[in-house]
Amino acid sequence: MNEDELLASALAPRTVAVIGASESIHKIGGRPIHYMRQNGFAGRIYPVNPTRTELQGLACYPSLDALPEVPELALVIVSGEKAVETVEDCARRGVKAAIVIASGFGEAGAEGRALQDRMRDAARAAGMRLYGPNTQGLANFGNGAIASFSTMFTEVPPGDGPVAVVSQSGGMSAMAYGLLRGRGIGVRHVHATGNEADVTVADMAWAVAHDPGVKLLLLYLETIADPALLARTAAYARERGLPIVAVKAGRSASGAKAASSHTGSLANEDRTVDAFLRHHGIWRVRDVHAQALAAEAYLAGWRPEGRRLVIISNSGASCVMGADASEDHGLPLAELAPATCAAVAARLPGFATATNPIDITAALLSNSGLFGDVLPAVADDPAADLFFIHIPVAGTGYDVEAFARDTAAFAARTGKPVAVSAWQESVAAPFKRLGVPTFVNENDALGVLAQLAGHTALLQRPPAAWEHSSREPVVALPDGPPGFLNEADSLAALGGWGVPVVPFRLCRSADEARAAFAALGVARVVVKACSRDVPHKSEHGLVALGITSADAAAQEFERQWQQLAAMGVAQEGVVVAAMHRGRHECLVGARHDPVFGPVVVVGAGGRDVEAVQDVAVLLPPFDRAAVREALAGLRMAPYLQGVRGDPALDVDALADVAITVGRAMVAAGGRIASLDANPVMLGAAGEGALVVDALIERA
Amino acid sequence: MNEDELLASALAPRTVAVIGASESIHKIGGRPIHYMRQNGFAGRIYPVNPTRTELQGLACYPSLDALPEVPELALVIVSGEKAVETVEDCARRGVKAAIVIASGFGEAGAEGRALQDRMRDAARAAGMRLYGPNTQGLANFGNGAIASFSTMFTEVPPGDGPVAVVSQSGGMSAMAYGLLRGRGIGVRHVHATGNEADVTVADMAWAVAHDPGVKLLLLYLETIADPALLARTAAYARERGLPIVAVKAGRSASGAKAASSHTGSLANEDRTVDAFLRHHGIWRVRDVHAQALAAEAYLAGWRPEGRRLVIISNSGASCVMGADASEDHGLPLAELAPATCAAVAARLPGFATATNPIDITAALLSNSGLFGDVLPAVADDPAADLFFIHIPVAGTGYDVEAFARDTAAFAARTGKPVAVSAWQESVAAPFKRLGVPTFVNENDALGVLAQLAGHTALLQRPPAAWEHSSREPVVALPDGPPGFLNEADSLAALGGWGVPVVPFRLCRSADEARAAFAALGVARVVVKACSRDVPHKSEHGLVALGITSADAAAQEFERQWQQLAAMGVAQEGVVVAAMHRGRHECLVGARHDPVFGPVVVVGAGGRDVEAVQDVAVLLPPFDRAAVREALAGLRMAPYLQGVRGDPALDVDALADVAITVGRAMVAAGGRIASLDANPVMLGAAGEGALVVDALIERA
Repeated sequence: MNEDELLASALAPRTVAVIGASESIHKIGGRPIHYMRQNGFAGRIYPVNPTRTELQGLACYPSLDALPEVPELALVIVSGEKAVETVEDCARRGVKAAIVIASGFGEAGAEGRALQDRMRDAARAAGMRLYGPNTQGLANFGNGAIASFSTMFTEVPPGDGPVAVVSQSGGMSAMAYGLLRGRGIGVRHVHATGNEADVTVADMAWAVAHDPGVKLLLLYLETIADPALLARTAAYARERGLPIVAVKAGRSASGAKAASSHTGSLANEDRTVDAFLRHHGIWRVRDVHAQALAAEAYLAGWRPEGRRLVIISNSGASCVMGADASEDHGLPLAELAPATCAAVAARLPGFATATNPIDITAALLSNSGLFGDVLPAVADDPAADLFFIHIPVAGTGYDVEAFARDTAAFAARTGKPVAVSAWQESVAAPFKRLGVPTFVNENDALGVLAQLAGHTALLQRPPAAWEHSSREPVVALPDGPPGFLNEADSLAALGGWGVPVVPFRLCRSADEARAAFAALGVARVVVKACSRDVPHKSEHGLVALGITSADAAAQEFERQWQQLAAMGVAQEGVVVAAMHRGRHECLVGARHDPVFGPVVVVGAGGRDVEAVQDVAVLLPPFDRAAVREALAGLRMAPYLQGVRGDPALDVDALADVAITVGRAMVAAGGRIASLDANPVMLGAAGEGALVVDALIERA
Repeated sequence: MNEDELLASALAPRTVAVIGASESIHKIGGRPIHYMRQNGFAGRIYPVNPTRTELQGLACYPSLDALPEVPELALVIVSGEKAVETVEDCARRGVKAAIVIASGFGEAGAEGRALQDRMRDAARAAGMRLYGPNTQGLANFGNGAIASFSTMFTEVPPGDGPVAVVSQSGGMSAMAYGLLRGRGIGVRHVHATGNEADVTVADMAWAVAHDPGVKLLLLYLETIADPALLARTAAYARERGLPIVAVKAGRSASGAKAASSHTGSLANEDRTVDAFLRHHGIWRVRDVHAQALAAEAYLAGWRPEGRRLVIISNSGASCVMGADASEDHGLPLAELAPATCAAVAARLPGFATATNPIDITAALLSNSGLFGDVLPAVADDPAADLFFIHIPVAGTGYDVEAFARDTAAFAARTGKPVAVSAWQESVAAPFKRLGVPTFVNENDALGVLAQLAGHTALLQRPPAAWEHSSREPVVALPDGPPGFLNEADSLAALGGWGVPVVPFRLCRSADEARAAFAALGVARVVVKACSRDVPHKSEHGLVALGITSADAAAQEFERQWQQLAAMGVAQEGVVVAAMHRGRHECLVGARHDPVFGPVVVVGAGGRDVEAVQDVAVLLPPFDRAAVREALAGLRMAPYLQGVRGDPALDVDALADVAITVGRAMVAAGGRIASLDANPVMLGAAGEGALVVDALIERA
């Protein structure tokens, strides 16, 4: 079944059977029927319940085979073994899509998982799509197809509109719906996927992204089950200008554990999730509240050109707090042109502040025109990308309606984003009525402006691609069982892909070590035992630094060779390598993630990487610019630019190592489980990068 | 005038003159009179306005000297030069306290500053206290003394209660008042200090802390002008169990700049502010919203014994989000006893989760008793310090009243903090009515629980004191002008205080350098030029490491000596010091802050301290435990415990260096402007710490 059919049979069915239907609109089996009729569903509804012949005014049928036609969509209200049988029955009869509401399957242990697998297998064998189990269902307010039992549609009246919510959790989908409707925003799609035995959030996201009425897509995920389809959806959405904002819960260890008992979700490594979402232009926020909070700003269609902020307030303290918060959110205060400041000053009382932040002071109380005077004076300053208006005190005596009108007109004229903060509902209401995004505090307001600016910049970047000058290496690994390659093989593999590696010789006798010293032709060498069984050599005293003579190299060979023998591990040789010190020790690592595929990390290297934990995650493909951007967020970033008069480091060379490793991981197609190049000695700009130790793990 | 009189004359005046009084209750000169009469002020009010004989039904007087008595408090509504004259007049006539509302003084440049100083001088000469200028005034709802023009007291009806708000900013005081009243919390004091020409936030905090009706004190500061009095207030408040929660704005560079044009505030170094507030048990939050948010939890009087959290929700996703948020806030999930889990499981449907987080599932809809069943089952588990109840979906069909009753009863019985999250007002309302702290999302709820746990722990610590075994050193510095001491003098000073410093000799000839090498009796020495004019030697190539012979030391002496000559700087000698490597390079620094006095920093050392920026701030007095706690928050913390099998480091030795430096800074009484001991080579536990370079700046 292709995606269009998915859309049609579940989101716009012509016929819906409700199996386990109820007369009571307060029951799970009754509510969906009530909702469909209430919201103008034009298709045919078939209640199925052997105890009744009529239900909510509709003819009721004793069983699926008693229906006058095979329904396109079946909403399965019954539970346990009965649900499984019903799904099997639906599949057999040619139903296109079945939604299973009941819990107690994949999230509840091995037995439930087996039942769930049976449902899924039956559906797949018949080409039927299965939604859930353990789901609240699907709701499309565009056509009234509400195959959902959410009580929230009673609590907060529906209103069709531009937002789509797709969520693993029914609770979170209901909450998003309620929060959005509470802000007066129209919501078309509210779909929950539950345990995702078959259909995942990615499937539903793909489907609703193709609804041209959808202008903002909100996702709630506990696991990313189908990253490829989610990536494809993100690419499509980006092309048609549809922003996607996601919550991915289970960020923490205890959260991931809780997710597994909620929807049976697998844990995703959270930094990889971050990198994945960012890579595909999906903005990640903390929770559903944050999704709802930013909705108006997205729906306004603003695409800010930068992050420079202008703050205007009638309270000096709010100017101070706003300036603090702007720094928290990485929004620099716009440096207004002298002409702008002069124009503002001409409109303000003498003791007010005409620079940014602009403090129009409590004088606003006696002169309600101040607001409308000041806004046009700053509107055209090219330094201003974003506007924040903070009114912590107003009410009786203030012409708030005029402030709101002036603000809305200003936003409409400039096309620049404006956010207002006003905690008093009486002050906020006029702004909200005119569609100006309005928040209770500056932190929320500036958070949304920062999100809008950041997400816009992310979406305006060219699609991710490999650095144009890079080439995919041919990855040939020595044959063998899963496990580590020894250092010599690991370095050789990297070298073979074109990564600069330290000159070395693998020696199998003291004489070879002596000869290697001479052949390398350097003043100092490193001697390191080489065995696939000892991936971490220094912990066993099997690394000797700063060897300055052939004899010493030979001696060290003997010592290490004997130690390997004593340890009873594979004696594959001893590496004699040129000793090289860069200006900074970095690392490039990679692993093949079971969900996301190749994942590359780059950052601070050396022996203490675990303690330092200063690395960025990159997903293929990526280029030098992407590596630079990722590195810029690390604590080691100052070193890359040069500290205390040191020269800047050769970041491009480091990026090239990461890119080659990334391309090799892709080319390896899962044959490499993990890879560590650490340290990568990084020189000053132009001096390059050199891998001096490496460890490849064969899958 | 002592503090009691301050309290009496400004917060409980028997007579108030309003100079510049107005008939209109919508004007600044009219509103305070209206408020006092509305709020039952029992003292005498004297409107002063030469154009009227009667005003708001009160006799009105043409001038101050026409009044039948000298008023205790004068509220000065007139502005500019006229305000200054009025203050001078009040001072002359024996008024006890004058509040100046007008802006355009210290915050508006040199001219305004001069006017402000005139007012302050006149007040001080006469023993009158001056409030403002540039203030909204004072309001005491305990007795109706409302010498404030805030419109907020009209917007949100007053209600006396346990909270006091003291703020530099009128806007922020009004906002705190409004937010608290909006939550139904009683507010007694709302005082704004404006430009603080005389009376500061610390004065007012001291005064209201002595009001026994006050149970929670909220401060808004843009500068800490009188840290000594604030510290004294904090100590007093702690003794009587009064928590203080502060906002200190101007955290950022641009925020500090904005503060200076708002109330003419001086910038405080923000990390020092953090350390100061923490040192004195004052909890710092981001903004006034955060102050209001935590109020109910403080007023409940809970004093949690720990941070272990139990999460209960009717939504699995909320359990996941709650677990994530608990990790964000450092609240570990309580490990419930097997008996507790069994008791919970017995009450839940089979597919629900009986471990923490406890997912009571949507079954709550069909069984409203679940809540009341589950709570008692966990109440007595000793592992549970804090409870979080998250209801993201409820409404019609749910017995929310019963949930709220069960929760309130549970909180009352256990005395353990409970926070509820419910974004639907209909769900939140019953909880709020019963006084259960209720929030719109889990982040707010857990933030407040974490604050309560953290603040309680902070207040239960023994008062800060010097490590009992430490002694105050005798600080003798060589005489001289302000500026740097050379390294030898700096090391000698530290050594004199009892800090372990590296063995060294100050040499003035090559022969002395040769002799020093022999005398030190070590294999490797460091040779460093010594000149007060070259505080940063390595930048000039004036440090030679790893010198292994007397001849080489002599040679290096010659080179450095000549280079000092070539640079035309003071040739005070060349230091020959034993070369010492610890396991980790740390730093101990100190400076004499113009506001806070001695400030000590401790953290990661080495040549890149500026780039690394990994230090903690400590204010005297402090002990080893305080240093340990401060270090535990640094990125270098893993090294202190030992990484990759390394031994733990001698943190006590590092702490002792910091303590001695701190005591020396105090003993120096401002004679030392700054001090840097960097690096401090730190060995494994028992190996000690050794200062190998130091730089003292004479004030």
